[in-house]
Amino acid sequence: MCRWLAYSGTPIRLEELLYKPRFSLIDQSMHSRLGVETTNGDGFGVGWYPVDGPAEPALMRGVGPAWSDANLREVARSTVSPLFLAHIRASTGTAVQQTNCHPFRYQNWLWQHNGAIRDFARLKRDLVLAVDPDLYPAMTGSTDSEVMFYLALTFGLRDRPIAAIERMAGLVESVGRAYGVPDPLQMTVATTDGDRVWCVRYSTEGHSRSLFYSTATSALHKLYPENKQLARLSDETRLVVSEPLGELEGAWQPVPESSYGVIQKGDDELGRFEPAVP
Amino acid sequence: MCRWLAYSGTPIRLEELLYKPRFSLIDQSMHSRLGVETTNGDGFGVGWYPVDGPAEPALMRGVGPAWSDANLREVARSTVSPLFLAHIRASTGTAVQQTNCHPFRYQNWLWQHNGAIRDFARLKRDLVLAVDPDLYPAMTGSTDSEVMFYLALTFGLRDRPIAAIERMAGLVESVGRAYGVPDPLQMTVATTDGDRVWCVRYSTEGHSRSLFYSTATSALHKLYPENKQLARLSDETRLVVSEPLGELEGAWQPVPESSYGVIQKGDDELGRFEPAVP
Amino acid sequence: MCRWLAYSGTPIRLEELLYKPRFSLIDQSMHSRLGVETTNGDGFGVGWYPVDGPAEPALMRGVGPAWSDANLREVARSTVSPLFLAHIRASTGTAVQQTNCHPFRYQNWLWQHNGAIRDFARLKRDLVLAVDPDLYPAMTGSTDSEVMFYLALTFGLRDRPIAAIERMAGLVESVGRAYGVPDPLQMTVATTDGDRVWCVRYSTEGHSRSLFYSTATSALHKLYPENKQLARLSDETRLVVSEPLGELEGAWQPVPESSYGVIQKGDDELGRFEPAVP
Amino acid sequence: MCRWLAYSGTPIRLEELLYKPRFSLIDQSMHSRLGVETTNGDGFGVGWYPVDGPAEPALMRGVGPAWSDANLREVARSTVSPLFLAHIRASTGTAVQQTNCHPFRYQNWLWQHNGAIRDFARLKRDLVLAVDPDLYPAMTGSTDSEVMFYLALTFGLRDRPIAAIERMAGLVESVGRAYGVPDPLQMTVATTDGDRVWCVRYSTEGHSRSLFYSTATSALHKLYPENKQLARLSDETRLVVSEPLGELEGAWQPVPESSYGVIQKGDDELGRFEPAVP
Repeated sequence: MCRWLAYSGTPIRLEELLYKPRFSLIDQSMHSRLGVETTNGDGFGVGWYPVDGPAEPALMRGVGPAWSDANLREVARSTVSPLFLAHIRASTGTAVQQTNCHPFRYQNWLWQHNGAIRDFARLKRDLVLAVDPDLYPAMTGSTDSEVMFYLALTFGLRDRPIAAIERMAGLVESVGRAYGVPDPLQMTVATTDGDRVWCVRYSTEGHSRSLFYSTATSALHKLYPENKQLARLSDETRLVVSEPLGELEGAWQPVPESSYGVIQKGDDELGRFEPAVP
Repeated sequence: MCRWLAYSGTPIRLEELLYKPRFSLIDQSMHSRLGVETTNGDGFGVGWYPVDGPAEPALMRGVGPAWSDANLREVARSTVSPLFLAHIRASTGTAVQQTNCHPFRYQNWLWQHNGAIRDFARLKRDLVLAVDPDLYPAMTGSTDSEVMFYLALTFGLRDRPIAAIERMAGLVESVGRAYGVPDPLQMTVATTDGDRVWCVRYSTEGHSRSLFYSTATSALHKLYPENKQLARLSDETRLVVSEPLGELEGAWQPVPESSYGVIQKGDDELGRFEPAVP
Repeated sequence: MCRWLAYSGTPIRLEELLYKPRFSLIDQSMHSRLGVETTNGDGFGVGWYPVDGPAEPALMRGVGPAWSDANLREVARSTVSPLFLAHIRASTGTAVQQTNCHPFRYQNWLWQHNGAIRDFARLKRDLVLAVDPDLYPAMTGSTDSEVMFYLALTFGLRDRPIAAIERMAGLVESVGRAYGVPDPLQMTVATTDGDRVWCVRYSTEGHSRSLFYSTATSALHKLYPENKQLARLSDETRLVVSEPLGELEGAWQPVPESSYGVIQKGDDELGRFEPAVP
Repeated sequence: MCRWLAYSGTPIRLEELLYKPRFSLIDQSMHSRLGVETTNGDGFGVGWYPVDGPAEPALMRGVGPAWSDANLREVARSTVSPLFLAHIRASTGTAVQQTNCHPFRYQNWLWQHNGAIRDFARLKRDLVLAVDPDLYPAMTGSTDSEVMFYLALTFGLRDRPIAAIERMAGLVESVGRAYGVPDPLQMTVATTDGDRVWCVRYSTEGHSRSLFYSTATSALHKLYPENKQLARLSDETRLVVSEPLGELEGAWQPVPESSYGVIQKGDDELGRFEPAVP
């Protein structure tokens, strides 16, 4: 079970969210030291967009535990970004290697995932065959998560993101059924083009992994009243996380089961996620 | 808090103890997945002596988590040894790098440690100065554990091992006192010359980390009745571990507080460990 | 351009060939320090069969340069084998990760390759589709070399090795032609089932990378007259290398262009390699 | 033999100097592919100061070859800095580990070195003893280069940099003489406090490794006439390198034997470097 975080809003240093909060993402990577839950020591990644306008995001990924990675700490301390994704990995079987670390990048898009396609080894070939042959060479790892990304790209992620993710989910469930795999899909996903962020919480069984969003910047202000950097966050700043950071009650709203959210200028969106056979 | 294991007896494949038992050492490295205690994901090591006679031991050490290291699994599967030490590390502050992974080796000797010298950064210089200048260049890492090894070598480990470790402990406590550090030493240690194995459980505060030994091979037979490889173990086969492997009650004896044990041909020894200012 | 070595014969320590000879494989990995040719610093691997009978080989692979890998040195020093393959890698574009390091293993088989499929990114999908769907899940890396291995397995490597490799080569050339890729295949390959070793030197353009074999053990004796371990090698001991080790003239025979060789008990074989469309 | 680069001037993206020029530092790391000289595949590092004012620099260091490090490429592409040091390492014997990679950092200072203290293993203890005990705990690696940095800090680097480096060199030579080591010191060094950069070229034998500086920004403009980013460099922009980048004759001036240079606002300095026993 992986963990991830997506941030959009007033530019901040990555370390403000990756290291400083109690129960920060890096804390969560060795959560077990607190006697709670699982270890996410099978790699990590962070993808960020530069402050000055749209561009291909930068990507830093490593195969060791995030908690002891000196370079991640340095980059987090020295990098300011208005939009970034961060992920810590607990492998569900595929190799611990950089090409399997999230976020995945394609041109200006990033994608990260917590969950799994059940029996992926058996289903993989059929799924990979459905990827657009022009996109196929860009896949360089071996995870279910990367295949999900390229299926979504194949089905139109760049034009109608949620519809494309729904078709990807529909295909996975369809192929899973053909192979007799029960409840084939489990996912929380974040994807972004550098402007908007789309998040999905869904599983075939209707019992998806957790996902939370910060309802309003005021919540963050309450979380870190003495943090001057956070105090200057815009009203539109949003954070979506697989597990709450910090301890203030009321700061986090669960994303409902089988739902998607869109973080964007103006009003955010929340809607029902419905897989569709492509 | 690290974990370690020392084996001496009938030659066996390393994997029989590193991977196969329930609660094997590798299981313990991500123990937290079972919801229990700490993660040891800051490196690992195994040092083994060849089957055919005395020689410098071989050493394999890595900086990633043991649980996902493919090479460790291969070496454990293909290597048979009558005497080996294995260690999984949770750093207490020093860098995660190969030269800081246990076991440490000097000529035909191996050394591994669980515990810490409190306030080591402050005490380190004085302790390092006490290392024999001829041994000094052989230290290549930055841990308290390695300094303890070279202090013990300085104080006669190769001639009178327990006395040398007692002098090392005495020096650490003496230097600690000089700097006003309370309870400076906490350790369980295993060291071997390829023939005998010496183990020590000690802490200044008299509340040392756990250490267990398998009282007799019959205990192991009971542990793994269907394991044919273990069924052929000699009576003199012994296992010393920081945490019990497997689940059978009665298989493990705690090493008493402030004690040492010697595993050797003929009767083993157990005695009181008493630090002595060198 | 990678380099590799295949050894079959009297059991020896791996280090005798990996480290000790002048121009040993490890020397070659940083050959450039001698001011000659290329660097092979993009990973390495060694696969070896145990002394006591047929079995799945052990595999050690790393992503750093072989010349500075402490664990490789330890394993080479402590491992004796009658049959092993060793490889140092210079990536031709795919990621530097363990799953891309040679040798590749499938059950009791090993495979290593020097060369490339030209324009592999474009051809990859068609080639991967031709892999037996039952074998497909076993591919975990992203290299042309691994796809070549699984194509050969698909085409009967385990029954008629050379014919299977010829069909693999035929497919690569056929797909290459369909995409308008000139001279699509360049390879020297070694593969073994733990009993025999098959080596191939071939390229579409008829100008293949170098490959040499030691004609008779007497040649090795001349190479290392003072090496007592080599002095006891059986007459059937053979070494195949991408570049000669040592310096004695006459010790090495080039494998002819478009040829295969079989190292086996009794007389070895040498024959013409002819790709066949499967 | 390592290679390094120091840049001070108009803020630029790191990749402009690390990757883009012909014979860029990264090219040099596998120079041998061009059939020239040595390989620097034993780690790398880059330390940079942020655009917005004085602060502790950020540091990214890795143990693999720079040429295949995906994270270095990403950071170089996304980071703009007015002052940075970059280094590629060929180990002269000490371990390939992150704590041994240059640049070294202490507070706002960076330090990088090409060269060696001859017979360092023998001299190390005496040199380390001369480091200020308050600075001693900050040394975390095992190289001669780091000890040189902490000796210079001990001797006043932060107040009178060149005088401190001269005392460091004097001590190394004095200890070397005491141990009968001929020509103990060989170095080109760059150090900076984030404002000025001090460079030294010196060796006991008077035959020091190469060091070059770009005399005027106009030289860089000639080097890369089509590089718009370089075209906007200030007149005070300076580059110091162990080997020339690019190919234009006349663009680079050798730092004279036994000399130091200071890059600073206003006129730069060049003077004679004279070791002094501390």
